Amino acid sequence: MNINEIRNAARRNAGHVRRTPLLTSPFLDEIAGRQVFVKPECLQHTGSFKYRGAHNAISQLSAQQRELGVIAYSSGNHAQGIALAARQNQTPATIVMPSDAPQLKIDNTRALGAKVVLYNRMTEDRDQIGADLSRQHRLTLIKPFDNKDVIAGQGTVGLEIANQARDAGIRNAQVLVPCGGGGLTAGIAIALEHDAPDMTVRPVEPADFDDVTRSLHAEKIEINEKRSGSICDAILTPAPGDLTFPVMTRLCGAGIVVTDKDCLRAMALAFTRLKLVIEPGGAVALAAALFQPLEIKGDAVIVVVSGGNVDAPLFADALNRFA
Amino acid sequence: MNINEIRNAARRNAGHVRRTPLLTSPFLDEIAGRQVFVKPECLQHTGSFKYRGAHNAISQLSAQQRELGVIAYSSGNHAQGIALAARQNQTPATIVMPSDAPQLKIDNTRALGAKVVLYNRMTEDRDQIGADLSRQHRLTLIKPFDNKDVIAGQGTVGLEIANQARDAGIRNAQVLVPCGGGGLTAGIAIALEHDAPDMTVRPVEPADFDDVTRSLHAEKIEINEKRSGSICDAILTPAPGDLTFPVMTRLCGAGIVVTDKDCLRAMALAFTRLKLVIEPGGAVALAAALFQPLEIKGDAVIVVVSGGNVDAPLFADALNRFA
Repeated sequence: MNINEIRNAARRNAGHVRRTPLLTSPFLDEIAGRQVFVKPECLQHTGSFKYRGAHNAISQLSAQQRELGVIAYSSGNHAQGIALAARQNQTPATIVMPSDAPQLKIDNTRALGAKVVLYNRMTEDRDQIGADLSRQHRLTLIKPFDNKDVIAGQGTVGLEIANQARDAGIRNAQVLVPCGGGGLTAGIAIALEHDAPDMTVRPVEPADFDDVTRSLHAEKIEINEKRSGSICDAILTPAPGDLTFPVMTRLCGAGIVVTDKDCLRAMALAFTRLKLVIEPGGAVALAAALFQPLEIKGDAVIVVVSGGNVDAPLFADALNRFA
Repeated sequence: MNINEIRNAARRNAGHVRRTPLLTSPFLDEIAGRQVFVKPECLQHTGSFKYRGAHNAISQLSAQQRELGVIAYSSGNHAQGIALAARQNQTPATIVMPSDAPQLKIDNTRALGAKVVLYNRMTEDRDQIGADLSRQHRLTLIKPFDNKDVIAGQGTVGLEIANQARDAGIRNAQVLVPCGGGGLTAGIAIALEHDAPDMTVRPVEPADFDDVTRSLHAEKIEINEKRSGSICDAILTPAPGDLTFPVMTRLCGAGIVVTDKDCLRAMALAFTRLKLVIEPGGAVALAAALFQPLEIKGDAVIVVVSGGNVDAPLFADALNRFA
């Protein structure tokens, strides 16, 4: 993985992917005790950064691959990104999703034209289901994070951050990134290594699903014991990826772990102060910036908000409790 | 009022005002039956477009005017825009606000350092209170819409729309704008007259507060009978302004009127499809695009979302009922 793959992804994605802005609020700065810059990928097409990697991967398929179709497994954001990019590239998409994914994510994936296959997150293995369907129907498997075209696409977030931070006069900052398998985190880290070398990426995870934080600390891949039990559905992956972990080891600072409750509080503050709808897993980095200021160094922090696909009752609950 | 005043405002506001993106969703296109482009000024500083006009006006004050301070009356969005721009320009701000304004707007105005004076919308006259305080304390009065620097600042939204629509390949479209006193509507109309002459601005208002729609139809200023009774607090002005009405008469198409219920439905769809928090008055143009398609002409419509300062209980209610 290198910077050229990310720059090529940016060229392929130009005119398709949305360049999200960099937002601020004096109210958030005051809570955090430093300047907070928010990169809202909830405003990306399909409501998360995942469309970036999906479009970069699918736009490179051969004519034959496109005709046969693609398959992906996903808790819902990669699903929607793949579904939209597949539709735009006239290729059929099959998506394997957990039956307990947010209803909005399942509905949207179907509405974008994909065939959805549900599985039980507690008893079945999505990698196995994906591999079997891929082989049976000669579908191209596009993994959610351990795929270099996907990582390169997600890394375009980092290119934009480097540019936008420079325009805002920020050179030196920690960049907090919601982290599941590490595709977004690794991609951003590679981009910033080249375009903003004074910045450090910090992966952020939910409590009990801190595999990346523990793996970085132990310098070897560690696995989560739990498979479910957090509201942060988007980033409950069992372990960092074989491609992403070496990149994170080389480039990232220590991980930060936040509670589900702090995610809800961050969602409520994003409602009030940024006018953004953020999903729990997309809010972990903002929660860390706001509620764990001692974990962070520097006068400014850059926060990636990775997605906004949250069901209305959960969002209303966050508002009722914390807005 | 002419285009040069808007271009000068854009120069004064550069580096201060946020350039908001132009958003889309295939789900909204399907509901509207045409392409829908959304300009989300809820993402502007202070959560509404009002900061544009406020910054343009206050940044032009003399040293003496700045020392004495400014005064404004506002249901809450102009209030916050003035408060922030005043603080940035080291001038004290006094804001006259209705006692039934959303609590969030009152709290934010105070938190941004302004002195808030509350009045009763049913029994007192804000123009009179503003004029009296202005005279007594030699404060510069910055009216919410009938002020050419304010109109010019709001018009910068139109410059951005012209540019962004061109980038998206759109030349010919109706541009739906939430309309209170008409500052935003008139400013955008002047900008588009020059930078996108094939576009037509359509003011959108809530039912029972359709003074602009009726005035445009009658070709003379008409006044609303009601003073309150809609959730669209941001745009419940009694009549179009003396400066804004001639501009709207010359440049705008017919007004469109929407129900409060359709505003709540539009807010719920913006939550689900755009990940945006929109206030009721900010949602009228989106409501018109989605639910009154026969009122609109063309393959594409551009919708301005003017603000997002909504109290959490009302937003949660919109989600409970319509998301």
